Amino acid sequence: MHQQAIIERVPVPPEFIDALRERFGAQVQTGEAVCRQHGTSEAHFAPVLPDAVVFAQSTQEVIELVRLCVAAGVPVVPFGAGTSIEGNALPVRGGVSLDLSQMTQIVAVNAEDFDCTVQAGVRREELNQYLRDTGLFFPIDPGANATIGGMASTRASGTNAVRYGTMRDAVLSLTVVTPQGEVIKTARRARKSAAGYDLTRLYVGSEGTLGVITEVTLRLHPIPETISAAVCGFETLQGAVDTVVQSIQLGVPLARVEILDDMQIRACNKWSKLDLPEVTTLFFEFHGSPAGVAEQVETVGQLAAANGGGNFQWASTQEERTRLWKARHEAYYAAVNLRSGAIGWATDVCVPISRLPECITQTKADLATASVPGTIVGHVGDGNFHVIFSIDPKAPAELAEVEMLNARLVERALAMDGTCTGEHGIGIGKQEWLAKELGESTIDVMRMIKRALDPQDLFNPGKIFTL
Amino acid sequence: MHQQAIIERVPVPPEFIDALRERFGAQVQTGEAVCRQHGTSEAHFAPVLPDAVVFAQSTQEVIELVRLCVAAGVPVVPFGAGTSIEGNALPVRGGVSLDLSQMTQIVAVNAEDFDCTVQAGVRREELNQYLRDTGLFFPIDPGANATIGGMASTRASGTNAVRYGTMRDAVLSLTVVTPQGEVIKTARRARKSAAGYDLTRLYVGSEGTLGVITEVTLRLHPIPETISAAVCGFETLQGAVDTVVQSIQLGVPLARVEILDDMQIRACNKWSKLDLPEVTTLFFEFHGSPAGVAEQVETVGQLAAANGGGNFQWASTQEERTRLWKARHEAYYAAVNLRSGAIGWATDVCVPISRLPECITQTKADLATASVPGTIVGHVGDGNFHVIFSIDPKAPAELAEVEMLNARLVERALAMDGTCTGEHGIGIGKQEWLAKELGESTIDVMRMIKRALDPQDLFNPGKIFTL
Repeated sequence: MHQQAIIERVPVPPEFIDALRERFGAQVQTGEAVCRQHGTSEAHFAPVLPDAVVFAQSTQEVIELVRLCVAAGVPVVPFGAGTSIEGNALPVRGGVSLDLSQMTQIVAVNAEDFDCTVQAGVRREELNQYLRDTGLFFPIDPGANATIGGMASTRASGTNAVRYGTMRDAVLSLTVVTPQGEVIKTARRARKSAAGYDLTRLYVGSEGTLGVITEVTLRLHPIPETISAAVCGFETLQGAVDTVVQSIQLGVPLARVEILDDMQIRACNKWSKLDLPEVTTLFFEFHGSPAGVAEQVETVGQLAAANGGGNFQWASTQEERTRLWKARHEAYYAAVNLRSGAIGWATDVCVPISRLPECITQTKADLATASVPGTIVGHVGDGNFHVIFSIDPKAPAELAEVEMLNARLVERALAMDGTCTGEHGIGIGKQEWLAKELGESTIDVMRMIKRALDPQDLFNPGKIFTL
Repeated sequence: MHQQAIIERVPVPPEFIDALRERFGAQVQTGEAVCRQHGTSEAHFAPVLPDAVVFAQSTQEVIELVRLCVAAGVPVVPFGAGTSIEGNALPVRGGVSLDLSQMTQIVAVNAEDFDCTVQAGVRREELNQYLRDTGLFFPIDPGANATIGGMASTRASGTNAVRYGTMRDAVLSLTVVTPQGEVIKTARRARKSAAGYDLTRLYVGSEGTLGVITEVTLRLHPIPETISAAVCGFETLQGAVDTVVQSIQLGVPLARVEILDDMQIRACNKWSKLDLPEVTTLFFEFHGSPAGVAEQVETVGQLAAANGGGNFQWASTQEERTRLWKARHEAYYAAVNLRSGAIGWATDVCVPISRLPECITQTKADLATASVPGTIVGHVGDGNFHVIFSIDPKAPAELAEVEMLNARLVERALAMDGTCTGEHGIGIGKQEWLAKELGESTIDVMRMIKRALDPQDLFNPGKIFTL
């Protein structure tokens, strides 16, 4: 397992744990099992256990917890569903893992305004179940059933981002408990505003390093009149990618377009009991009016045919659609479990779309000669794709090889004016790449903001950059 | 004229001006006329003259100027086209007005990726002329022909925002000269990224208070296959607003939908030589495929008819469309000049769309009893509208009345969970309202960021909030 650089733990005195128990009673847990669960990530990072886990149930409790921690100089690491994959929620300096997963209230749904406000612990699937009768949906869908607070913190996206944007676009306003123990709202509910610094966007993607997000106001979208989903196999990876790039360049408003290479299809067939031909495949979804969807399908079908694509296989019922996208959302677990007992490592580059065919085919060539199995899956409409490696944790050489392959991939993406992370965030896994991507002067500005807002460096310390 | 609170000018020693001249020669100007031009806004604020105007021609020159100013403790106030209307570019503490309008290079157009990079002084109309042959366009269009740098600084939007978003959405990356005299790039060219704090969005809307934007990378959009524009008069203001709100709630992807009340139509008829019936009118534009546009027109036409709208009058040629939208863009000047020699004051509230009919009709009732002429014009699809007052500068009672009317309007919008400024920014005009909108704790976070990034308070000091 990857042994991240050792960061000194902050010593937490027993009196502090006693003070926590006095205020929060059974909401404080220090047992090995719960601490291990909060100190282990879904990826390849070694576990780091918190000194205590506190389950908060309200913004008021978060305020009180933050004040206790700040007074005692103890780190606070917000924790949602624990599904991030850059070690984003690992308490690398110890302290309190602040679990928000019990904050599951839907505070308000304003259907006429296409927005809702939820507590940070609400999960995306539960939100969409709740919204079903309103005719609206919340589009952002990372693979896991993450919490809304966690998704805001990592600036998550998913399969719908090509049409509906990322958490950057989806969040209208946040309630945040600051390191000063104050509660702030970053914006009103108007769809646009020019009222001062865009604190909403500053907190979206700040990974808990500037305070604790406790409530999120989200933009929603009307469930389209017509939804059609299809899969289409391709003779070559290049042909599949070219089809997507050309569709985007023609302005086709694709709602979803996902690529899965032959290896990923094999993994999904096994994990999700599908029976797709094991070739590079695009998963499409089209949203619109009946006529609009027909137009889109016509255009994309012609491009696919010209690029070596087969016939579209339609998932015409809601059940078939759900089965297809469930398989897509489980792609990470499917790929990691190509080998039993394996640990996962997902890369996350995103490049300008014109460079995507080159980036993805060069990466596929790397994988062809690698000794560790790696699949390709991604949000090609955004220029974002993942390689998911299935690593034997007992073979250090495999981890070293994947580190090298990831480095080659990120260097390739940066050379194309891309980013090392389209949607997973920096956490502890991408810090050296962030520096190469943006330069130290840019990170210095981030550091100035961090020091100003969290002068004791207690909020998810050790993440995104070193101070 | 409005006499803003006196802020002490920073004394600028003659040696400093000499040092500027030594480095920048004729690019430094201290004459009364040029200083007055850079110290006067298009709205109702009293002029405040800079000590010198420096015309920069490159990022390198901005770096050198910033370093000179910071070393001497002299304020730097970025200036683009001077078309902002909350006093955003007034040098209220004196110092250097840094004029970026000569930085007009189109640095790169990446047509396949739908993006371009421009220097901050490029104006939106010139950019679109330049792009014409690429099949792409840049949608953000405030009334004035503003510079891209100024539009980024105030988080501007305009008539297309309902479909294409605001500068928040349009900016992919910025080149900024920081108060430390370093040049940073805030992001790569990928369409999405989760790489650390979203400095792009922090600088968009920061009104020059955190550094100087010198280059902007923008998202572009394909010119739609079909564009149709129409106007439609309504029996009542409420009927017009209801038509828009219902269209939005049905998910019609309107490209533009603007409301102009009877008074504003009268002003436009006079200023732009139109001959529209002087009733509340909606200006529409529909973008899409031929079939898609036909669908939109069908839906909106039915809603308009049900809400007391007349027939759509189509602007079918490019010339007619241009004439229509030029009139819309000149609405501010048309309204202010309803009385000769008058000065303007534009309000800028934005509310959740479900509250818009109520907000706008109550405002119209206020105007009916006011003694100062005021028109209503706005981006109703966003919930954003302006009252443009035409004020006699020699009648202090008029200014006082408008202040009162504006206060009533902003209070009304805030009570509806709206914002005091949809797109004009805070500048010096909206500071007390920002505090009421977001609360002092939220503004304290902005202050911490400002102090951290600009510790001497030299970059557009006195704007957005008081330190």
